[in-house]
Amino acid sequence: TPPSFPITATLFPGDGIGPEIAESVKKVLTTADVPIEWEEHFVGQTVDPRTQSFLTWESLESVRRNKVGLKGPMATPIGKGHRSLNLTLRKELGLYANVRPCYSLPGYKTRYDDVNLVTIRENTEGEYSGLEHQVVRGVVESLKIITRQASLRVAEYAFLYAKTHGRKRVSAIHKANIMRKTDGLFLECCREVAKKYPEIVYEEVIIDNCCMMLVKNPALFDVLVMPNLYGDIISDLCAGLVGGLGLTPSCNIGEHGIALAEAVHGSAPDIAGMNMANPTALLLSAVMMLKHLKLTDKADMIHAAIIKTIADGKYRTADLGGSSSTTDFTKAICGNLNF
Amino acid sequence: TPPSFPITATLFPGDGIGPEIAESVKKVLTTADVPIEWEEHFVGQTVDPRTQSFLTWESLESVRRNKVGLKGPMATPIGKGHRSLNLTLRKELGLYANVRPCYSLPGYKTRYDDVNLVTIRENTEGEYSGLEHQVVRGVVESLKIITRQASLRVAEYAFLYAKTHGRKRVSAIHKANIMRKTDGLFLECCREVAKKYPEIVYEEVIIDNCCMMLVKNPALFDVLVMPNLYGDIISDLCAGLVGGLGLTPSCNIGEHGIALAEAVHGSAPDIAGMNMANPTALLLSAVMMLKHLKLTDKADMIHAAIIKTIADGKYRTADLGGSSSTTDFTKAICGNLNF
Ligand SMILES: CC(C)[C@H](C(=O)O)[C@@H](O)C(=O)O
Ligand SMILES: CC(C)[C@H](C(=O)O)[C@@H](O)C(=O)O
Repeated sequence: TPPSFPITATLFPGDGIGPEIAESVKKVLTTADVPIEWEEHFVGQTVDPRTQSFLTWESLESVRRNKVGLKGPMATPIGKGHRSLNLTLRKELGLYANVRPCYSLPGYKTRYDDVNLVTIRENTEGEYSGLEHQVVRGVVESLKIITRQASLRVAEYAFLYAKTHGRKRVSAIHKANIMRKTDGLFLECCREVAKKYPEIVYEEVIIDNCCMMLVKNPALFDVLVMPNLYGDIISDLCAGLVGGLGLTPSCNIGEHGIALAEAVHGSAPDIAGMNMANPTALLLSAVMMLKHLKLTDKADMIHAAIIKTIADGKYRTADLGGSSSTTDFTKAICGNLNF
Repeated sequence: TPPSFPITATLFPGDGIGPEIAESVKKVLTTADVPIEWEEHFVGQTVDPRTQSFLTWESLESVRRNKVGLKGPMATPIGKGHRSLNLTLRKELGLYANVRPCYSLPGYKTRYDDVNLVTIRENTEGEYSGLEHQVVRGVVESLKIITRQASLRVAEYAFLYAKTHGRKRVSAIHKANIMRKTDGLFLECCREVAKKYPEIVYEEVIIDNCCMMLVKNPALFDVLVMPNLYGDIISDLCAGLVGGLGLTPSCNIGEHGIALAEAVHGSAPDIAGMNMANPTALLLSAVMMLKHLKLTDKADMIHAAIIKTIADGKYRTADLGGSSSTTDFTKAICGNLNF
């Protein structure tokens, strides 16, 4: 059942092209009559001691309260004494699963026309522990941490996602032939969860082989679940198959039912403020957010309008080989909304 | 200058299809009048306590003595108390760089026709340290080790390779935005070496972005150098772009001037002994070995014959969509040798 209206959602426009593409999202959602009120939060100008980053405590509280949000690109300012903005969000909000559907867009030609998969990435530990030190001069080590708790949690999410989205197969991606204990534990957790979903085919694929299979025949894959770094690598590879990060949405699933949808591309400072940016990834991420909120009809309508606009090919931003402005592309999408 | 003749080289036919494809190599090299005498070594039936693996001490000594060898696929028997065959070779022979040229084969169609790059992988440390342990129940960690010594060594090799092979650009692949200290040290070493090669363009590419760029436009890359696991992943991805591991050669560069060429595909036990295997990867690896030995004319002649045979398309093994036997394909190559 859809929640009571109107819904308040946190919006992080982010840096660089962020504000422009966030405008595009607001415009499309307003035109589509989506009952959402945005609580906008910007990256701070100074380090907030409560978050140890340029993210303010208030902005984290906003997501915690609303349980749902949308995030544009955030470039972490260079310097010491503060944490990466993206990693702070993941850590502080317990964003344990990063979900990225990846599919060939009708009418937008790449070398692949049959991609339709979803990568589900563990988002809190693994190689991202931040634990590194120099042992002796010229010898440094980095700790990869895999826990049963985080592995089970992301595996549970992957199978539940597969089931609720009519997907048939879950592939766990690993390198347990080398990292027997860490990746081994990850696989153990996946196997445990797989037993509860006999209707879903479960398989294990070694990451190097997975990458080879993905570029040869991505149609072999359906849902992929994996530890943090493999997810980072494979989700970008998959985005590349269908045209890049400017076209692929993502949503982070967090503790206490939080969902933070996110465009994972960069902030493109070189074209910021020039009304040239492609808002597709943020728009499709907003669609994921709407689906999460069970605003399914609105989500489907907006999704269809985006797809149709790209497929028509008349209005395309520069990154897709066109010359439309962000605002014209946005207007075209609004014009394609099919009430 | 070519070494004095005849040259003795170690040959590990390996398991599964290994012996058949090794036969093919011997046949082609003999027909091409290559002055090589093979010292054949097989994987042992029991664990040799001196190597702690099924590899015999004598076989390692053979490579150390000859300084050059060719290796087919080796499947490590399952069980405890012994080391992986491949890792034992890398460790015991100090095989510090794994070099994999990867190029589109004329006449063998994939989604890509413009691949021409070389991956150079650090082959001894990183995530392959073998150091893993359980911290408490449900929490395991794995140590990634990066040393200045190994990083410099592989970087030196990559730039030297670029220079001696007329390549223009070296890209160091990393995730130093997350693993600042380990991958940071790797980059530091690459930068140091790059300074000595002002004629070669040096760049740094984050691994996730690299994978996206590779599937979108592999022609952007020339020589790629990277830590162990990234090399494992990216070299297989690249092989996938041009048709898979059955078509791509590799050579391991080791301490004391050792070179061990190697087909990195699996042992394909399902088709072993059926005269169906594709010997291309091992043949092209043998060509790399001949080039290393400065038997350049022979190497070029054999290379041209392999390429011509695949391009003609009349004789192709099953994995390439044909129905030729290993021996017929081999005969066709011999027939295409252009003395
Ligand atoms: C910006 C970077 C820290 C981040 C990551 O490595 O997770 C990015 O690549 C991503 O996938 O969101
Ligand atoms: C078999 C396996 C241990 C090996 C590796 O991970 O290095 C393989 O994938 C390779 O690339 O040679």
